[in-house]
Amino acid sequence: MRNKPTPRNAFYAQSGGVSAVINASACGVIQAAQKARKQIGRIYAGRDGIVGALTEDLIDISRESAATIRGLRYTPSGAFGSARFKLKGLEQNRAEYERLIEVFRAHDIGYFFYNGGNDSMDTALKISQLGAAMNYPITCVGVPKTVDNDLPLTDCCPGFGSVAKYIAVSTLEGGMDVASMARTSTKVFVLEVMGRHAGWIAAAAGLAGRKTGEAPHIILFPEIPFEQDQFLARVKQCVTDYGYCVIVVSEGAKHPDGRFLAEAGTKDAFGHTQLGGVGPVVANLVREAHGYKFHWAVADYLQRAARHVASRVDVEQAYAVGKAAVEYALKGMNAVMPAIKRRSSRPYRWEIKPVPLAQVANVEKRVPREFITADGFGITAACRRYLEPLIAGEDYPPYRDGLPAYVRIKGAPVRRKLKTAFKV
Amino acid sequence: MRNKPTPRNAFYAQSGGVSAVINASACGVIQAAQKARKQIGRIYAGRDGIVGALTEDLIDISRESAATIRGLRYTPSGAFGSARFKLKGLEQNRAEYERLIEVFRAHDIGYFFYNGGNDSMDTALKISQLGAAMNYPITCVGVPKTVDNDLPLTDCCPGFGSVAKYIAVSTLEGGMDVASMARTSTKVFVLEVMGRHAGWIAAAAGLAGRKTGEAPHIILFPEIPFEQDQFLARVKQCVTDYGYCVIVVSEGAKHPDGRFLAEAGTKDAFGHTQLGGVGPVVANLVREAHGYKFHWAVADYLQRAARHVASRVDVEQAYAVGKAAVEYALKGMNAVMPAIKRRSSRPYRWEIKPVPLAQVANVEKRVPREFITADGFGITAACRRYLEPLIAGEDYPPYRDGLPAYVRIKGAPVRRKLKTAFKV
Repeated sequence: MRNKPTPRNAFYAQSGGVSAVINASACGVIQAAQKARKQIGRIYAGRDGIVGALTEDLIDISRESAATIRGLRYTPSGAFGSARFKLKGLEQNRAEYERLIEVFRAHDIGYFFYNGGNDSMDTALKISQLGAAMNYPITCVGVPKTVDNDLPLTDCCPGFGSVAKYIAVSTLEGGMDVASMARTSTKVFVLEVMGRHAGWIAAAAGLAGRKTGEAPHIILFPEIPFEQDQFLARVKQCVTDYGYCVIVVSEGAKHPDGRFLAEAGTKDAFGHTQLGGVGPVVANLVREAHGYKFHWAVADYLQRAARHVASRVDVEQAYAVGKAAVEYALKGMNAVMPAIKRRSSRPYRWEIKPVPLAQVANVEKRVPREFITADGFGITAACRRYLEPLIAGEDYPPYRDGLPAYVRIKGAPVRRKLKTAFKV
Repeated sequence: MRNKPTPRNAFYAQSGGVSAVINASACGVIQAAQKARKQIGRIYAGRDGIVGALTEDLIDISRESAATIRGLRYTPSGAFGSARFKLKGLEQNRAEYERLIEVFRAHDIGYFFYNGGNDSMDTALKISQLGAAMNYPITCVGVPKTVDNDLPLTDCCPGFGSVAKYIAVSTLEGGMDVASMARTSTKVFVLEVMGRHAGWIAAAAGLAGRKTGEAPHIILFPEIPFEQDQFLARVKQCVTDYGYCVIVVSEGAKHPDGRFLAEAGTKDAFGHTQLGGVGPVVANLVREAHGYKFHWAVADYLQRAARHVASRVDVEQAYAVGKAAVEYALKGMNAVMPAIKRRSSRPYRWEIKPVPLAQVANVEKRVPREFITADGFGITAACRRYLEPLIAGEDYPPYRDGLPAYVRIKGAPVRRKLKTAFKV
């Protein structure tokens, strides 16, 4: 480590799918960094995430008002722009990493805060390794974010609690709607939710039903191979017993042979298959088998952007990991991520502890079998104990003229210092 | 009118698609009726709406706790059950109307409050006419409810303001989400909203965009024939100018020849074509023409059940029309509906005034041309002035363990008095 007396600059970037609370993490990072004037000079953000770093398109956060920074705490989406852009391995594309170091060096960036999921933790780790190899001192700290809740070594991921709350509330409300009209109208309602490989969001829908017969009646997890006959039999049983059936299906639900129930056939920038439309697929299966009147909903982006019904616990944790990331960096901790440790469930007590990025990167935490009922269609009491604290509390944004008064940044650019351009 | 000294009983029924605030109207009816002990005896509700009346399946509201009745004000769905069941014309099926009178007579029901949309106002009118013809005195008052906002002679319809708020908030949040990732990810986002013939809900999405370039960029109304070439050109222009394009499409959007953009091919109990799926249809049109990465969402029942983000104005109006319905009935006014009259827009001032059911029944109020921009893709300032007050204010339900603490009725049945059964 250098013992330079002058403060060095910080760089913050958002990565991957945004969430209702990723800006709350940004708020935590920025407010903590602004307090550390002796160690941190200017605070920059990448416009559109890491793409902004590669193209030297930096946003000068110091030129945003304190009110705007405070407003990030209750503003969904990625205020600085996020990117679906995965850096390849060091061997495959060393040029990208070297370009990042070049940009960081040009702007004297000594702290890199990367706010994202599995892929991003891997990128942050690699940059810290390359910085060391290239003799450029940089402290890299990951800030966890993923609505999928699939990061290991943390009780949960900021972003998840609010999606979970939105889906649980929507399942409760939609289920009551269907129940009240089932006698003469819709008998089967299908809600499609996000979750490519991990069924955490689908599991959260299970919180809506507290008593036998309450919606949701069937949850289709990516973790449980879809058995069509058992599924259709259960639908029929529900309609017979309760008069209606509410089904929550994860976009990642799969046939026993591993094929997704619905594949759009296109791939995103990370090479992942782009999904969507499993809701209507499942609804049509039911109609063909039983002929019930059906409806389906696909929440898509609405679920992860729904700051209006965010979980207070989620907002607090999102802010806390952002703040802790800066505190770790100031202590000289490198290649770590602030993780949430659960100390008790009832009441929910948690604290922030560092974990090494090397242990987080590219590891995926799925819903354990003991969180899913034996029949594969519901959540267990243990799952409910885990999930319930994560949706606790409300944290409403301020409203103006009937709409949330979300903030938008000015986004003033930092003057470029490099002559070379970089084509992404 | 009879001058019977003993009070007569009241019957309340919910009809058609439920909403976030139809129970607030029920609360208004019930609390007002409970205060009128000299004129109103017991208060019954139809289990599953008018079906409960035909089958003599009545719920004894008097056996619900005061807390439950208060809770109806913040509980979505139809607490007593609603029905998609349209009585045919008097000539075609006089037996159904006579059966209703028979049940009403058996339970000494002197007041009929029917909470629904166009079709229901027509039914209430016919029952009042038949009561007179059959020498059975019954006071019939309609209580307006429809998320479609298509009833005439009222400034708006209870239920609409909350859907409007949900859709405006969702468009704002979803639009910000897409904007923050458009550089490397989704360029086109399509949100499908309800509105079979009238584009009021689609119009409400327009409230989300206050400045040029803000989402939604394109609204497809049922009132404006879909011109594919103009639409696709506009999508391309948006992506070029703003980097992304958010499209809100009404389920009732039509081709110039009158065909719906998406028809499921099935019909509901009212003989209306069942729609759904226009969102993916529009998204695919865009992909085929331009190849942009896209996402789509279909809010379906979530939008009309979303009590968690209800409009306070809507809740207040829903309660007020319920309360006024009872007050009108107590004054001996028959075959009327409490309507909302706007006295000013800024500030929004309104009052409740009676209108004759005969003028409401089966008349549909669509979005006027002057509320839609000349190009057919957006809303005008006049439309915004009309809509904005309707989504004003929040009215959050209480929460318990992270979820809204909605109430459910006991639903104690009233002892049957008739020997005859009725097959619906």
